[in-house]
Amino acid sequence: MVKERIERVKGTRDLLPEDMAKRRWVFERIREVFEVYGFKEILTPTFEYTKLFQLRSGEEVVKQLYAFKDKGGRDISLRPDLTSSVARLFVNKFQNAPKPVKWYYITNMFRYEEPQSGRLREFWQAGVELIGSANIEADAEVIALMIESYLATDLKEFTVNIGDRVLLDEFAKMLGVEDDIGLMRLIDKKDKMSREDFIASLKDFGLSDDAIDKVLFLIELKGKPDEILPKAYELFKSDKAKEELKKIEELFELLKAYGVYDYALIDFGIARGFDYYTSIVFEAIAPNELGIGSIGGGGRYDNLIEVFGGKPTPATGFAIGIERLIPILESKGLLPSFRLSPDVFVIYIGKEFEVRAKAIEITQALRKAGIKAEYDLQGRKLRKALEYADKLEIPVVIILGKRDLAEGKVTIRDMATGEQKSVAIEKIVEEVKEMLG
Amino acid sequence: MVKERIERVKGTRDLLPEDMAKRRWVFERIREVFEVYGFKEILTPTFEYTKLFQLRSGEEVVKQLYAFKDKGGRDISLRPDLTSSVARLFVNKFQNAPKPVKWYYITNMFRYEEPQSGRLREFWQAGVELIGSANIEADAEVIALMIESYLATDLKEFTVNIGDRVLLDEFAKMLGVEDDIGLMRLIDKKDKMSREDFIASLKDFGLSDDAIDKVLFLIELKGKPDEILPKAYELFKSDKAKEELKKIEELFELLKAYGVYDYALIDFGIARGFDYYTSIVFEAIAPNELGIGSIGGGGRYDNLIEVFGGKPTPATGFAIGIERLIPILESKGLLPSFRLSPDVFVIYIGKEFEVRAKAIEITQALRKAGIKAEYDLQGRKLRKALEYADKLEIPVVIILGKRDLAEGKVTIRDMATGEQKSVAIEKIVEEVKEMLG
Repeated sequence: MVKERIERVKGTRDLLPEDMAKRRWVFERIREVFEVYGFKEILTPTFEYTKLFQLRSGEEVVKQLYAFKDKGGRDISLRPDLTSSVARLFVNKFQNAPKPVKWYYITNMFRYEEPQSGRLREFWQAGVELIGSANIEADAEVIALMIESYLATDLKEFTVNIGDRVLLDEFAKMLGVEDDIGLMRLIDKKDKMSREDFIASLKDFGLSDDAIDKVLFLIELKGKPDEILPKAYELFKSDKAKEELKKIEELFELLKAYGVYDYALIDFGIARGFDYYTSIVFEAIAPNELGIGSIGGGGRYDNLIEVFGGKPTPATGFAIGIERLIPILESKGLLPSFRLSPDVFVIYIGKEFEVRAKAIEITQALRKAGIKAEYDLQGRKLRKALEYADKLEIPVVIILGKRDLAEGKVTIRDMATGEQKSVAIEKIVEEVKEMLG
Repeated sequence: MVKERIERVKGTRDLLPEDMAKRRWVFERIREVFEVYGFKEILTPTFEYTKLFQLRSGEEVVKQLYAFKDKGGRDISLRPDLTSSVARLFVNKFQNAPKPVKWYYITNMFRYEEPQSGRLREFWQAGVELIGSANIEADAEVIALMIESYLATDLKEFTVNIGDRVLLDEFAKMLGVEDDIGLMRLIDKKDKMSREDFIASLKDFGLSDDAIDKVLFLIELKGKPDEILPKAYELFKSDKAKEELKKIEELFELLKAYGVYDYALIDFGIARGFDYYTSIVFEAIAPNELGIGSIGGGGRYDNLIEVFGGKPTPATGFAIGIERLIPILESKGLLPSFRLSPDVFVIYIGKEFEVRAKAIEITQALRKAGIKAEYDLQGRKLRKALEYADKLEIPVVIILGKRDLAEGKVTIRDMATGEQKSVAIEKIVEEVKEMLG
């Protein structure tokens, strides 16, 4: 057999026990909020027909697909997000279900892009989709839920910045721009370039100086509604835009009722990468020194169900980026520390079967009582076994000698203090529970 | 935009809220046992270099790989199991960690094979790997853990059948068979064919009538050790085989100490599909009428770490097949039923902002108290909203009228009895808690 050392694939990572403990903590916190809001968990397959992701026509996403042909010649792709799959599932089976359908997921996605801080080729998202309500209440519900999800992880410094695709469309019309999607892409990239480069790119795009001034005015429309909305009403003159601004005004009033108003801001410069958003869009930002941008985002996508062959059905949702959230929580010291080592380590002395069997019985009795217990599977000598327990910071060690056993006793050692005492075998569980507090 | 209805890919499935609730229940039960045994959760990437799976040389698995080239020209495969990835991770980073390393995982795998009962192209496994101990205690530990995992899901009718690859090797030598792997593959398939076909396939393989009789004798060696071991000592004469039988004898004694002896059986006809097993192998079987065979399996693989470029390191582990276990639990009525609908539904009458905002405030107050509450995002008329609550079997409905609100009250309706009462807004949470019991 060839001996060859193989590394993991670029852009992927191994999650070690501590990573998993942190993730589970974050997942459970978020899950609890999702469920109390009445969202139900679903999971779609890891791969779908490539066509599903192409249909949605988000160009950037299609470029980044893990696309391949399977052995049956099918064009398959690993999911880049869950929204397409959820829409497919809805069209296949749930069009006649009572509305709204409220689903959530916590799972992994795949994008073939250059790995960088907070961007991996396999990454996890916790998200929701709310399908079947066109009301602004539905937008308020998912935005409030997103805010409360972050709060549940103890994050406090963050905002959810809210923009609107209809307004951006109207804005493009106002400027006489035909390629409105092109303009939105440019606006979307504004935070990744200098002001000079941004202006230059708008010039390249064909905008006049006057139009560029308007764009610069638009992207400065960031803040609380009472400050921003009056300016927006000045900028936008079309009836459609005014109606949309009224909706946003109401949205923020509803967010007050939800009790999350403090975390919401207007940011009319937000477009969001995906082409399928149709109205309210939003992005969560948490200030950090790790170079991590948005830690989640979402918006309304009222056309997608129809694109996938369903009846016209409004929908909205968001996804939280777990590989972005966790480092931020970590850098702010918001994650608890997790003890992963066992609570008790049972060491036996000698090779006699009777002693080994008793070590197992004691270990099992502790486990049955819900105590994380191990016995020395390696059969080490006492000194080595104690060194092992010490290295793993196991707080309690039980030592079984043959002579002690004959008297129905064991030695229990408190590894922090080094104190030892002799305890009757039938009292072990009780004693250990007391020592562990 | 094209309107096209897209189905999910053959051999995959969508997991709906009820499926997810069942799975989470099963996962949490199993996870608890894994953790109390001191195993720690890890997760490796969904795809690895194809070479990783080829190196292990399990021919059948390689044939069934979801293998593809990524955009960087890399040969990548979706993982068919986690053992190879775990071994890779161990070699890359954990060779010098204190032994044994005890890891568990609960995640999805992929195999390109014909979909059939209990076999999907994407499926989930809960498994453990115990790396670094060559002692029979380690085999006993993982077998006991497997048994306790099933017991934790309330499954009671099942056995873990234990075989041995060394004995099968010795048996092949005894018969003068050179292609021992080929013989094992045949033996492994015995349960999937008639006795006649099995005998015919042994003849095709080149065995004499006498050798075939021996094979038939071997595969009948199934049962408790006190019955089977004496017969095995008669069949096997080599020192190596006798030593191995002694180990099995001791293994069952240890399983007594673990308290799981009743669920363990000898079955010398077990080979297990993978070529990397080196000694003790085992398979869990639960009688069922669903056509589901093994519900989990594992064994010792002492060479794999070395094949992957590591220092020689003994290891053992198992995986539980979730898509096989759950239908069996279900068919035996062992899964609890899960209420997925909200506990409370808040309905408001009229379109006034004040009323809508109050509906949200009440809903949020209930949610903050941990009660799964929703309000009518659709803004339906009272009758329609009540019909919706009835359809979803939501036990408690709160109705907000404008006049009631002026008095600081709402109507609470018990949907089971139809009884209604007027309650002060500040008493709602208390009242609902009482009604939900």
